Amino acid sequence: MDQREYLARLNPTTEDPEELFEHFERRSAAGRTLHALPDARHGVERGTVVVEDADAVVRGYPSLPRVLVLGTGLPAFFEPGTTVDVEEKLDGFNVRIADVGEPLAFTRSGFVCPYTTARARERLPLTAFFEDHPDEMLCAEFIGPESPYTTYDYDDVDTDAFRVFDVRDRESGDPLPVAERRDRCEAYGLPQPRHFGRRDPEGAVDVVRDAVATLDAAGREGVVVRSADGRAAVKYTTETQHHDELAYAFSVPFDYGREFLLSRVVRDAFQAAEFDEDDDRLRERAHDLGESILLPMVEAIRDVEEGATVGERHVVRGDPDAVEALLDHLRDRSLTLETEADRREDGDRVVEFLKVAESTRDRVRYYLDGGTRDE
Amino acid sequence: MDQREYLARLNPTTEDPEELFEHFERRSAAGRTLHALPDARHGVERGTVVVEDADAVVRGYPSLPRVLVLGTGLPAFFEPGTTVDVEEKLDGFNVRIADVGEPLAFTRSGFVCPYTTARARERLPLTAFFEDHPDEMLCAEFIGPESPYTTYDYDDVDTDAFRVFDVRDRESGDPLPVAERRDRCEAYGLPQPRHFGRRDPEGAVDVVRDAVATLDAAGREGVVVRSADGRAAVKYTTETQHHDELAYAFSVPFDYGREFLLSRVVRDAFQAAEFDEDDDRLRERAHDLGESILLPMVEAIRDVEEGATVGERHVVRGDPDAVEALLDHLRDRSLTLETEADRREDGDRVVEFLKVAESTRDRVRYYLDGGTRDE
Repeated sequence: MDQREYLARLNPTTEDPEELFEHFERRSAAGRTLHALPDARHGVERGTVVVEDADAVVRGYPSLPRVLVLGTGLPAFFEPGTTVDVEEKLDGFNVRIADVGEPLAFTRSGFVCPYTTARARERLPLTAFFEDHPDEMLCAEFIGPESPYTTYDYDDVDTDAFRVFDVRDRESGDPLPVAERRDRCEAYGLPQPRHFGRRDPEGAVDVVRDAVATLDAAGREGVVVRSADGRAAVKYTTETQHHDELAYAFSVPFDYGREFLLSRVVRDAFQAAEFDEDDDRLRERAHDLGESILLPMVEAIRDVEEGATVGERHVVRGDPDAVEALLDHLRDRSLTLETEADRREDGDRVVEFLKVAESTRDRVRYYLDGGTRDE
Repeated sequence: MDQREYLARLNPTTEDPEELFEHFERRSAAGRTLHALPDARHGVERGTVVVEDADAVVRGYPSLPRVLVLGTGLPAFFEPGTTVDVEEKLDGFNVRIADVGEPLAFTRSGFVCPYTTARARERLPLTAFFEDHPDEMLCAEFIGPESPYTTYDYDDVDTDAFRVFDVRDRESGDPLPVAERRDRCEAYGLPQPRHFGRRDPEGAVDVVRDAVATLDAAGREGVVVRSADGRAAVKYTTETQHHDELAYAFSVPFDYGREFLLSRVVRDAFQAAEFDEDDDRLRERAHDLGESILLPMVEAIRDVEEGATVGERHVVRGDPDAVEALLDHLRDRSLTLETEADRREDGDRVVEFLKVAESTRDRVRYYLDGGTRDE
């Protein structure tokens, strides 16, 4: 690839092509050669991909910061006088869908996911959209019970679905303003996350507070608050989300980083300090937190004791070739899969499988066998 | 110091004096020059000290491993046919007291603590003991409400006290057999931790289980199980201890390492999986765990919000010079102290102070002011 040319198009903080491109990995997907950046470097987002034979750049999606205290966090984060939109943040798999000769779904770290690609082509009016807007990318959460990446299930989503939460220029990463993006998605029939309101940052505090109460009661994740021009955004999550994530992490406790665990507790504690009015409410949250941590871990220990495999259960469904490509893709990424069921339904292949949590399995087995821990 | 000579006496896994001694730090204490090893290196324990002008070596106390599952852990850890002693493990400050010209109390990392030294000389019959056994060291927990290092208070201990849990050769680190050590401590009037029983490793499981139930009900730490010859030992702790440590850590959450937090949860979960017979018991533990984590952290956030200082509160009492030397010693170790009271009582100086948790104070303040978190 012509590094000088792509350097100019990626516009990093370095002027030396080698300094940037030494971090790119060469990969093959969908019969194409990709150059992907697995981690953010020199001002270029993680997951940025150069598709050389399509002469295309697909920018990574920026990592959004989080406020821990709403009342001060929103006014401090946005410039005075900004108008902000409050939208639901869904608990799914974040992908960018871009037309690089054909529409492909790129993961956060810049892999092409064959399963998500196939599902996106089935579920979304990609042809119509990209015909009119070939240089844009759809940033979407892939949600539902048949996502191979996330374990959260929405009551009102029966199978895989997408929610388009952002539309950006594929190469520059510039977003559409929120209102324009919502209108455009509406026009093409692209499903979107719920919109809770538009205010100044101070006024948005109450909107978020009410939205989070509603979402919490429904067991959903949280919100993203975005400046109307689409350029600045922060997230804020529900108690349910903190506890669900802890419960998930503690079901495979030795496969998760310590930072993951502490950060969820930190979010919950700041939320409690801001919103839990009385001791009963606080104690209820504490009990729920404790259950989220201890019960899944005890269950994992007992599972290992009984010889059951521990890990993350998924069901995937679709065209047999797409399902096979997905399983290959997961195995290529060094995941150990255990197939629990594999059947045909109406021409679709349906596979139930477990992503085996090997560290948890091995460490728990070691301690159950009487192994000691040096601390 | 003559490195070749001390190398032979320390008997490390390296034959090159430079490889070992480059890790020693030169320190002054009690008018003497010490060379201390802050971390374990080449088979030499952390906190090992060479007191050159006394021609003395004071071995560090080895780190004891921990079993997470009692039923398999004790039989797996000890050689078949071993007899083991079960003794209480106290929640205090671990020091070695050795006579290097005069009796000094050495901390785990090889500092001389002037306060602990002064207290040990007052409380323990050191002159009589070291006259008969000049080459031995007393390994003791320094406990009680007036210890400047620990926050745990025992109901039956009004002021500082010591419990001698091991007696070792100062230079080789070889321990006395448990029975001989207990007899010797008894003979000199050296206070000791409680002894729960002596069995084979299989039989010790029930002894530990009963002991831990008793200690848990009294809110105490746990046990050490030691081979009768004193050479091998493992520890096991109570639910109370796990939760107390979490509560302490989450009262200063940004001053504690993530590993600290996870390890306490791991201990609790394995204990629950082994011993909690029914769901009610398990749920009770989970609720208590959740309260240990969330309530102190919310309190810390609210303290910072109200402008109060967060940290660890201590009271120290004693000879004015010893108290002054202690405060200097703590400040030398880069701790920020906030004095809350400083008075005389019967010729003693009594100081109440706070070890300020600076990271917690600063990070909590930042988030309260609306700061964001990148994850």
